Amino acid sequence: MSEQSPAAALDAATLDAADPLRHFRSRFFDPGAQVVAYLDGNSLGRPLRDTAAYLSEFVAGAWGERLIRAWDEQWMEVPFVVGDRLGQVCLGAAPGQTVIADSTSVLIYKLLRAAVAERPDRVEILMARSDFPTDRYLAEGVAAETGRTIRWLEPPLDSGVSVDLVQEALSDRTAVVLLSHIAYRSGYLADAAAITRAAHEAGAVVIWDLCHSAGALPIELDAWGVDYAVGCTYKYLNGGPGSPAFAYVAAAHQATLRNPLTGWMGAADPFDMIAPFAPATGMRRLLTGTPPVLAMQPLIAMLDLVAEAGMPAIRAKSIALTEFAIELTDGLLARLGVTLSSPRDAAVRGSHITIDHPDFREITLALWDHGIIPDFRPPTGIRLGLSPLSTSFAEVEVGITAIHDELSRRA
Amino acid sequence: MSEQSPAAALDAATLDAADPLRHFRSRFFDPGAQVVAYLDGNSLGRPLRDTAAYLSEFVAGAWGERLIRAWDEQWMEVPFVVGDRLGQVCLGAAPGQTVIADSTSVLIYKLLRAAVAERPDRVEILMARSDFPTDRYLAEGVAAETGRTIRWLEPPLDSGVSVDLVQEALSDRTAVVLLSHIAYRSGYLADAAAITRAAHEAGAVVIWDLCHSAGALPIELDAWGVDYAVGCTYKYLNGGPGSPAFAYVAAAHQATLRNPLTGWMGAADPFDMIAPFAPATGMRRLLTGTPPVLAMQPLIAMLDLVAEAGMPAIRAKSIALTEFAIELTDGLLARLGVTLSSPRDAAVRGSHITIDHPDFREITLALWDHGIIPDFRPPTGIRLGLSPLSTSFAEVEVGITAIHDELSRRA
Repeated sequence: MSEQSPAAALDAATLDAADPLRHFRSRFFDPGAQVVAYLDGNSLGRPLRDTAAYLSEFVAGAWGERLIRAWDEQWMEVPFVVGDRLGQVCLGAAPGQTVIADSTSVLIYKLLRAAVAERPDRVEILMARSDFPTDRYLAEGVAAETGRTIRWLEPPLDSGVSVDLVQEALSDRTAVVLLSHIAYRSGYLADAAAITRAAHEAGAVVIWDLCHSAGALPIELDAWGVDYAVGCTYKYLNGGPGSPAFAYVAAAHQATLRNPLTGWMGAADPFDMIAPFAPATGMRRLLTGTPPVLAMQPLIAMLDLVAEAGMPAIRAKSIALTEFAIELTDGLLARLGVTLSSPRDAAVRGSHITIDHPDFREITLALWDHGIIPDFRPPTGIRLGLSPLSTSFAEVEVGITAIHDELSRRA
Repeated sequence: MSEQSPAAALDAATLDAADPLRHFRSRFFDPGAQVVAYLDGNSLGRPLRDTAAYLSEFVAGAWGERLIRAWDEQWMEVPFVVGDRLGQVCLGAAPGQTVIADSTSVLIYKLLRAAVAERPDRVEILMARSDFPTDRYLAEGVAAETGRTIRWLEPPLDSGVSVDLVQEALSDRTAVVLLSHIAYRSGYLADAAAITRAAHEAGAVVIWDLCHSAGALPIELDAWGVDYAVGCTYKYLNGGPGSPAFAYVAAAHQATLRNPLTGWMGAADPFDMIAPFAPATGMRRLLTGTPPVLAMQPLIAMLDLVAEAGMPAIRAKSIALTEFAIELTDGLLARLGVTLSSPRDAAVRGSHITIDHPDFREITLALWDHGIIPDFRPPTGIRLGLSPLSTSFAEVEVGITAIHDELSRRA
């Protein structure tokens, strides 16, 4: 390391020592020497120390011993029980409105089809060009097959969708507003409450993509009056690679919800098998196939940790981590041509930041080889995803110092 | 037990001793006293003895240590690598045509939408009233949203869809034939090769639901000229509750396949993130969301076992098991009013049989309490799913004897 003096006002050791959540770090699996600094908790959260044991217990217990009986005894309700728990701990959602199922992308398709059908006389889906590709691709597909058009918001790349930007685009043509609560690249935190209010005033319904916010900061879906929401569980909720997603449907929409994928698990009585299809009441209506019960197990364990820490403390640490990362970027990287592509105001920032430099694609691979693991986001971004319960300030310092050293070597 | 003399020509002990696959039973997790006879391998297969260790290794290795790097290193290809393996071991499918994804129901929706779009000038979807509810429900949904109608075949309940029945219904109105290879209730094994040929002669495309045949008997999708197939992995493939499903798309259909759920994992370059959506070439096109990598792990381990045993030996044992179950039914249960609702001819029978009696709903629950675990299928069926690698002849005997004893007690 070429810089010996700390670039930030406080050093990492002091910050880690003062961190009220520091003891949670020992609850995660220790990856040993292969991981020096993990800075991609918003792409794939780490397993818990107990995740493997939790899975073993599931295999030997409910699956191995109860076998098919476990469907009657508990598994038919697992999507709703875990959904309610997630709703309570992370989403500000009263019971009966959250379910675990499918993937984020499949749930976006279902919710978007359902939402569009609720506004048959309106032709526009409002989205942002900065939204994650899967949201955009799915919306383009749904628009094409339902005769709608997409109206694209074009927010600045280092920021995101402001209330004003949405207000200007809303009209009596707007059927659905589908936006990311936190932008996947910049980390911009949208004002979900105000945008939801504005959308409702214009007669539209909203779908919030919570992939980058669930588990990272307090969310109040009920209080904000949100219609629909969706998100993944493998980022800050540490569900494991490809773990199932979640969907929220406000109680007021459930009776009329039309799920286009009318599978047996969304039927009023999945085991009737003789009656013609009738949609279930409540959130079961959003299900299609057999619930991914084994794949939900790591998430179940993680929700206990999140509940124990509490969302306000998680948000406080998240802000401190991103603040520290920005200080180090300013102090160590700015003079090497690195730019910050994320908001400086913590009030409109999630738990990751993106920094840009033309060499970052190559540098990311070099860092990975040394166990320093951020993510790369095209065309030139390194994204630092700081997972409040598992990331230390020391990891942030090690990571940004390593970026500095790689850049210096190439300069 | 009230009968001391064996009801079948050979007793279970003799059959088990002569079973060339008997040593595979020790490769499954031992459930202890909670399971006396497991006769529902076609609803939920048992975990392997090594499944928990396999999962632990995954958590500590690829997930815990490689973390996000594992997506680049291996996980992006896992749906295709495991799909190809499944295709080779179980489906008679050359590489590049099978993928692991979603649930059976979600994949049926995707394939049916794609297949219907291939025949824009044809209005009928041909199905059987005896098909599993999720197939029927989804097809009704797709028919409604695409302006198609369903033409229902009405096969006898204790049998299934014959070639003649299909021939009579096929016409130049038929767009798609969607049928179960093995009927979920009767266990009837359809002549997939002949029906596929007949459908093609009529200008239709076929989708085979392989849920009850994959892993239980040899399947030759390529040789039969099948267009599309789908199936689950938690029955004879022991993937665990809610494990992801598989889909097969014959190479000839892939270039024009239109997946209505256009998520990022089905894009030509999922990590481009800037270009507009373009569908991937090959089977990636059928993907939508992030692949359920953790949830595929038990299946991966099971495919090794299936490959080791070989499908011909598995089929031979499957026939011997169902033959034995029918002998015992005839010998012990027929005089108590139980009827066989499955084919007597092994050539048209899968690996389960259904028997009917008005008291079977109650009796199933009583059996479950005693660790004897068949499945119940409305209105009055007990279904005995005999998984060739894990089920013993002794279990069949114990199960049918227990049904006899329960019925006798009530008589």
